[in-house]
Amino acid sequence: MAKIRIGQGIDFHQLTEGRAFWLGGVAVPHHKGALGHSDADVLLHAICDAMLGALGLGDIGVHFPDTDNAYKNIDSKILLERCAALIAGKGYQVVNVDSTLCLQAPKIKPYVPQMQEVIARILHITTADVSIKATTTEKLGFVGREEGVVALASVLLEQQD
Amino acid sequence: MAKIRIGQGIDFHQLTEGRAFWLGGVAVPHHKGALGHSDADVLLHAICDAMLGALGLGDIGVHFPDTDNAYKNIDSKILLERCAALIAGKGYQVVNVDSTLCLQAPKIKPYVPQMQEVIARILHITTADVSIKATTTEKLGFVGREEGVVALASVLLEQQD
Amino acid sequence: MAKIRIGQGIDFHQLTEGRAFWLGGVAVPHHKGALGHSDADVLLHAICDAMLGALGLGDIGVHFPDTDNAYKNIDSKILLERCAALIAGKGYQVVNVDSTLCLQAPKIKPYVPQMQEVIARILHITTADVSIKATTTEKLGFVGREEGVVALASVLLEQQD
Ligand SMILES: [Zn+2]
Ligand SMILES: [Zn+2]
Ligand SMILES: [Zn+2]
Repeated sequence: MAKIRIGQGIDFHQLTEGRAFWLGGVAVPHHKGALGHSDADVLLHAICDAMLGALGLGDIGVHFPDTDNAYKNIDSKILLERCAALIAGKGYQVVNVDSTLCLQAPKIKPYVPQMQEVIARILHITTADVSIKATTTEKLGFVGREEGVVALASVLLEQQD
Repeated sequence: MAKIRIGQGIDFHQLTEGRAFWLGGVAVPHHKGALGHSDADVLLHAICDAMLGALGLGDIGVHFPDTDNAYKNIDSKILLERCAALIAGKGYQVVNVDSTLCLQAPKIKPYVPQMQEVIARILHITTADVSIKATTTEKLGFVGREEGVVALASVLLEQQD
Repeated sequence: MAKIRIGQGIDFHQLTEGRAFWLGGVAVPHHKGALGHSDADVLLHAICDAMLGALGLGDIGVHFPDTDNAYKNIDSKILLERCAALIAGKGYQVVNVDSTLCLQAPKIKPYVPQMQEVIARILHITTADVSIKATTTEKLGFVGREEGVVALASVLLEQQD
């Protein structure tokens, strides 16, 4: 049988006024955006980490250090492409991705189909294989105070024939 | 081979005096309970989300919006039943569920077997396939201050023969 | 086909001055360490919980209660060995482990290979099957304030031939 492997990722970013809010490769209109060295796309970062982790390839901080100017303001879709290339190079493909965005605002539901398309295209899977869920924290903690955003991702990889 | 898919869920609720504390379909005696539009069963919600996410069917907020009076104070076991019907309709069944409740109090260990029975019956699996773990946050954060409760769930689904 | 099962774990510990900081079975030099009844190795605890959870065997608190003096200051590698024995006794082995440490400081990258070796040896898998990732919370919450540390782990188990 095809070899199956599991990966998981979690990422955190502060929210601040006057930054674009990149989520899942899409710029979501909001008065705040995520702060970071790259475009701070918390969802793509969690998915990258899950893909790398499934094959024991380190983490996003190892591959794309935030001390490296090459990654300053970089589009995280490029990072996801590189992770996709890394796992393909190891002979694996993504079976499915499931993820959750924890954020108090805004409602991201209208943007989910576009995020799914962006991610599915990069990972060479269908949009049905890219799940993006969202939840508030019911006003609790730093997410509830709109100081930050968290994303969690799980992936299943399988060895290609 | 049977097609395998992964799902994950996370849910948050505030704790407040004078609410029943529904966890895993069981009313756990406690001076506080979880606040929410439905019965606020954080564990069942995380499992629902993991099941929906595994097949890219959206999330619990999409299927059972908290702005819809139909779900006011609803028993979350009904939501879990609907999620089970949705995945069965797609030709999938649950292999196993693993979950963790993060809460400072009370000790839920005495109620775990009953929660497992409730969930296993709804999902048509055995209680050995429904894992419910618990941890405090060692007094840290909003969970540690008993302001809220968090549940995480992972599921593995497989295509039915 | 071999039966596959999923497990997940999350663990929390407070950080305090003057304690050794055990992470993944390695004492990481730092001015703070994790507080707990055992050696408070948050990463090994999350992995133990994921392994137990995958087979519905309860959680680390059930198997190794912090009210039991037998586990006072115990080396968590012993707990991981016992979990490995428990799953082997059920006829399962670990396919792979993926994990994330959420901590603000110190940088754990230099210690990851040693942690992988420790864990791989106990679980009878290769270091490529033990992924340990790390992230800060970007100064957010109790992790960001260096009051605590969190670890998340996912495992895939398969039935042995
Ligand atoms: Zn990030
Ligand atoms: Zn809920
Ligand atoms: Zn612990």
